[in-house]
Amino acid sequence: MANRNEGSPAGRPAFWSDNIVGASPEVMAALAACNVGEARSYGADELTAAVERKFCALFEREVAVLLVPTGTAANALSLATLTPPWGSVLCHPDSHVDNDECGAPEFFADGAKLVAVGGPHAKIDVEALRRAACEKVGDIHSTQPSCVTITQATELGSVYSLEEIGAIGDVCRSTGLRLHMDGSRFANALVTLGCTPAEMTWKAGVDVLSFGATKNGVPAAEAIVLFDTALAREMAFRRKRSGHLFSKMRFLSAQIDAYLEDGLWLRNARHANAMAARLVQGLKRFSCIEVQGEPQANIVFCTFPAALIQALHGEGFALYHDRWGPGVVRLVTSFATTAAEVDQLLDRIQCLAGESSNESGDTESIEAGSAA
Amino acid sequence: MANRNEGSPAGRPAFWSDNIVGASPEVMAALAACNVGEARSYGADELTAAVERKFCALFEREVAVLLVPTGTAANALSLATLTPPWGSVLCHPDSHVDNDECGAPEFFADGAKLVAVGGPHAKIDVEALRRAACEKVGDIHSTQPSCVTITQATELGSVYSLEEIGAIGDVCRSTGLRLHMDGSRFANALVTLGCTPAEMTWKAGVDVLSFGATKNGVPAAEAIVLFDTALAREMAFRRKRSGHLFSKMRFLSAQIDAYLEDGLWLRNARHANAMAARLVQGLKRFSCIEVQGEPQANIVFCTFPAALIQALHGEGFALYHDRWGPGVVRLVTSFATTAAEVDQLLDRIQCLAGESSNESGDTESIEAGSAA
Amino acid sequence: MANRNEGSPAGRPAFWSDNIVGASPEVMAALAACNVGEARSYGADELTAAVERKFCALFEREVAVLLVPTGTAANALSLATLTPPWGSVLCHPDSHVDNDECGAPEFFADGAKLVAVGGPHAKIDVEALRRAACEKVGDIHSTQPSCVTITQATELGSVYSLEEIGAIGDVCRSTGLRLHMDGSRFANALVTLGCTPAEMTWKAGVDVLSFGATKNGVPAAEAIVLFDTALAREMAFRRKRSGHLFSKMRFLSAQIDAYLEDGLWLRNARHANAMAARLVQGLKRFSCIEVQGEPQANIVFCTFPAALIQALHGEGFALYHDRWGPGVVRLVTSFATTAAEVDQLLDRIQCLAGESSNESGDTESIEAGSAA
Amino acid sequence: MANRNEGSPAGRPAFWSDNIVGASPEVMAALAACNVGEARSYGADELTAAVERKFCALFEREVAVLLVPTGTAANALSLATLTPPWGSVLCHPDSHVDNDECGAPEFFADGAKLVAVGGPHAKIDVEALRRAACEKVGDIHSTQPSCVTITQATELGSVYSLEEIGAIGDVCRSTGLRLHMDGSRFANALVTLGCTPAEMTWKAGVDVLSFGATKNGVPAAEAIVLFDTALAREMAFRRKRSGHLFSKMRFLSAQIDAYLEDGLWLRNARHANAMAARLVQGLKRFSCIEVQGEPQANIVFCTFPAALIQALHGEGFALYHDRWGPGVVRLVTSFATTAAEVDQLLDRIQCLAGESSNESGDTESIEAGSAA
Repeated sequence: MANRNEGSPAGRPAFWSDNIVGASPEVMAALAACNVGEARSYGADELTAAVERKFCALFEREVAVLLVPTGTAANALSLATLTPPWGSVLCHPDSHVDNDECGAPEFFADGAKLVAVGGPHAKIDVEALRRAACEKVGDIHSTQPSCVTITQATELGSVYSLEEIGAIGDVCRSTGLRLHMDGSRFANALVTLGCTPAEMTWKAGVDVLSFGATKNGVPAAEAIVLFDTALAREMAFRRKRSGHLFSKMRFLSAQIDAYLEDGLWLRNARHANAMAARLVQGLKRFSCIEVQGEPQANIVFCTFPAALIQALHGEGFALYHDRWGPGVVRLVTSFATTAAEVDQLLDRIQCLAGESSNESGDTESIEAGSAA
Repeated sequence: MANRNEGSPAGRPAFWSDNIVGASPEVMAALAACNVGEARSYGADELTAAVERKFCALFEREVAVLLVPTGTAANALSLATLTPPWGSVLCHPDSHVDNDECGAPEFFADGAKLVAVGGPHAKIDVEALRRAACEKVGDIHSTQPSCVTITQATELGSVYSLEEIGAIGDVCRSTGLRLHMDGSRFANALVTLGCTPAEMTWKAGVDVLSFGATKNGVPAAEAIVLFDTALAREMAFRRKRSGHLFSKMRFLSAQIDAYLEDGLWLRNARHANAMAARLVQGLKRFSCIEVQGEPQANIVFCTFPAALIQALHGEGFALYHDRWGPGVVRLVTSFATTAAEVDQLLDRIQCLAGESSNESGDTESIEAGSAA
Repeated sequence: MANRNEGSPAGRPAFWSDNIVGASPEVMAALAACNVGEARSYGADELTAAVERKFCALFEREVAVLLVPTGTAANALSLATLTPPWGSVLCHPDSHVDNDECGAPEFFADGAKLVAVGGPHAKIDVEALRRAACEKVGDIHSTQPSCVTITQATELGSVYSLEEIGAIGDVCRSTGLRLHMDGSRFANALVTLGCTPAEMTWKAGVDVLSFGATKNGVPAAEAIVLFDTALAREMAFRRKRSGHLFSKMRFLSAQIDAYLEDGLWLRNARHANAMAARLVQGLKRFSCIEVQGEPQANIVFCTFPAALIQALHGEGFALYHDRWGPGVVRLVTSFATTAAEVDQLLDRIQCLAGESSNESGDTESIEAGSAA
Repeated sequence: MANRNEGSPAGRPAFWSDNIVGASPEVMAALAACNVGEARSYGADELTAAVERKFCALFEREVAVLLVPTGTAANALSLATLTPPWGSVLCHPDSHVDNDECGAPEFFADGAKLVAVGGPHAKIDVEALRRAACEKVGDIHSTQPSCVTITQATELGSVYSLEEIGAIGDVCRSTGLRLHMDGSRFANALVTLGCTPAEMTWKAGVDVLSFGATKNGVPAAEAIVLFDTALAREMAFRRKRSGHLFSKMRFLSAQIDAYLEDGLWLRNARHANAMAARLVQGLKRFSCIEVQGEPQANIVFCTFPAALIQALHGEGFALYHDRWGPGVVRLVTSFATTAAEVDQLLDRIQCLAGESSNESGDTESIEAGSAA
């Protein structure tokens, strides 16, 4: 196993994950600001109500919102509400819910089954989904397809197009399944597509959204957004019962409130994506490095020579590697990544790989913030 | 149902609960201060390690510590680690785990059973416990007594003496049960007893402690303290799987770190207890009010005439009432309660109740901070 | 713990339980007879369909029926289908589901909670139920009352009257709860009341019935009878998933088919009840023995002097005692109990207790079969 | 979906499954014979003790035995006892536990995960297993490999050799995993290998065995055989709690007792296997039919032309088809299949397929009972 939990030593930029950085100053300021006087507990406070109104405006319709501290909680609660214990969740084999949550969906959904449906670039293939959605329906010996979950942006850094989401939504509608979106990097995908939140979700058939914020600039807060508001009552009990109902809810709400305020969430995502694009353009110059897929968000997968990985580690660069295959490196940028950090990494690769760039491309021409 | 989630309008002190107030300034400052640079994720950061060391020092021995955001999570994870699915948890019928967590222990422990063992002042009677611990042991038709959980301070504001905890610990040891302490208000009990954390826990037989902080001055953080460190591995998987492992763990750790720093947690608790004592002394002056039990921490239960409750509500005082019985009012003080707020309530009661105090007691003689 | 699992040595009648005897010859003959040729598996066979038709006729309406091998399975599946994981089941503190199923309802219902509602003679008090049904409804911190289960005949041998069942059904209807009947000894209660199966169930508000047969003459078969047939689909998946769907279903169906044929089930129950009545009349003659409650079915609770219990044990009588309190003896008769066996026990008591009967009552005047 | 639950009309042999036939006369006689007098309940009777002794003799060592009525119960209880909720079960993607039990293992194991490890002929590839057993061990984000389950004979009718089982056992031992064998068709595999039960199980590293009987001549009974007897206590509670503890246990025990008596179980298996071999030899004559894999037990997979399937159905032959792929037919023989039935099917295929056999092979030369 790779040393998943290591950050980078001081002085070297880390591309380990978007969870090693802290939070945006605006969010921290909001946290401090909300700490005044008394507030009703368990979500009955005014700030929480304000956050729900913001989501209604953002999604251009009535929605119900439940805040939780982690993405795993958001996903597992969502899937549990959409799937009976004898049901199955159709998900991509590369999905976070199937690989990185230690069985949280199975725990919250009382033993429901995750069934893998493949497709390139960590995106579910719609034809494979159509077949899986109809398989063994009514067969008493088999768990019953109950919902589909897609990750937007995906765990590999790709992004579903609106057409792709819509096609999956159509399959769900026609087969009676519900559609969940793991939006752990929702903002990163949104700025890539340049569409509205409504278009990327309920207008395309999404029933429940895990709206991520932690990876994009808040300490620890995610929002479950229910487009089918009838699910809110059940989910409220499930949230309490899983220990995710905060008594001093304002401290969750303040994070999301600031995150949504004045476009902070979109600015952060645009910046992270731009840094990833800068990184990709730089990496493509090296013949010994192969960039995988088509990075569209803030995650880049590529293959490095083993010696290069070792050399970079020796110098103190934190790289997450070898969990997905030999030589496979994952690089993640965030709202806090700077162009200088990207360039520092590229420069060291150039030195260590002992090669001149195989293109005349100039990474300096990429400006932060111009990617979306 | 009482309007559980209502705080008080501006201008009137609220004695609703210790979760309607915010956090200590020191804790908020620590949150801001930790937001610098990168930190390893999922608890591998240095601040989290420092917190664990602080707990080792505090408890004068090696302990394992897992941070979670809520008391329900701390309790449910603890009980699940101590109880197999066919086991039973012996708890007081007034306990939070049995009444106020919407079945979280049963959920986390995969359907284990909570079995009530009574006793006065919300404290488990040791003789009743001794009987319950031996009941139907080995009987295949019955869930098997597996652990005991006690709340310190209790939900009624009473406090187990060291002798009482020790006697319960002895029963556990002799019957092979494990002992959990729900220390949601651990600090309040500790300053009342004036003993060390070690004496109130593992020296008396406690195996696992839910060390509360949220009610006593932090936004949302609790520590599970394992005196049997062998339980840590299993609990780590359970924490992840229930969505309670924070990626940006430093934001949990910073809260607890500041809470423990320089005795803040004890100062906060002493103040809250002192305000409760001031309140009790004042309430006892009124013949129409009966204080229940012997409040030893920051919770006061009493009975008010219905008209008085209504009148106080009409004036904007937030009182939690009628959930425990007709006319029963719960008043809770916190680190943020001021003597002026206590006196304001007492003054209004005197006016509304239309009676002069039945004692010559002078509440001013009680100084904040002198209660322990 | 009492030696629950001991039968009686040869030559002495056993009143241990109605599960120590075998099965009626008619049922065994049916088992042998069904073992001819091929039959569709998993319940698609003709015999299973015939059993369902018999139940429709018996209950004078459309019902759905699922056969399972044990009463615990029937009860746990029923309660799981009527209760969400965050729900609570209101049951009597003496109920089998709460005491003798090792947490099966909690397991099948994914951690739902059993909440005790008391009442004399192991029967739920309707006023207490009315209060419990409304307690904390909508309170996010509490499991939500979802269904009520009553045992007919009760674990103490008493029987709910039609009025009592109807009153409980009314409470359920007005509060939105569902009503389950644990009919482990359904036949014994029915012949006592002298009413129709419809009157004792759906006409009084019962939604789901565990229709017992094992204790009354079959090897191992119970029927879950759904008066709300819409529940059948979900329950079918739950049955499979809990391992209770038989591949060679005919061997379950044949038992129930024979049990219902030609009134066998009623004859067996009448006989068992008559033997209990004979026993009670005999026991009442002894001043050292106190019969508890008003035995109306085939279970008799009474208190014996410790010396008498010991003496009877010494002679080889199997008596189930001291599980419910010191000196409390439970005597159970069955379809296979003979009048001679009853009399043999009474004779020995008379000898051992060293007293003449305190009445001139003559047990011989009670004829088997005349009790209902 | 294929019509899974259809048997065949009278007059036509059915090769649907080995669960459409009844039970051996010897077993039915034993059931009748055990229905005499009283017996201790819940497995404390003498017949159950005798069955346990028989298993000890059969496996040449001390074992603990728990009887249950279905294979799904046996498998799910076994896996739950070997796997914590955060664990994973390594199984073949074609396995019954993963495909045909509606999530029973996930239910019994409180949300543990089934992870597929492939290999030809429905047998787990040992090298793939070695990799899977080490994957993400200690990674808090992933369920932890906890046990391996193999099916002997497999769902495709193949049989693991002793070397193959031993190699899997070695992987388990070296990686700290436990090994379960789903022996739903244990006897069929055993007579194929011609080895002892000990050699095929614990001597090769198996910890827990689901010893099947239902498919091979009993109404509804399976035995969980624990070679690690320390697991028996936990499993006993799990059995009770899942509703699989019979009160009148003798009726389960009698089935297994007769099944093991005088080699009945081996005779039945030899006959079923011989009928499958006769079938295979006959089917191989037809050029339009392709037999898949190498049938070694009583299951034969082959591909039929769609028209042939339809024609056979039209004539009343029950064939299970199209669940595994277009044109794929599964034929299963049993202890009750006759050579005449096999020949009748082959004759009709010859007529309907309109072809003469492409070999001069004479099926008559295969004698029932000579296959092992």
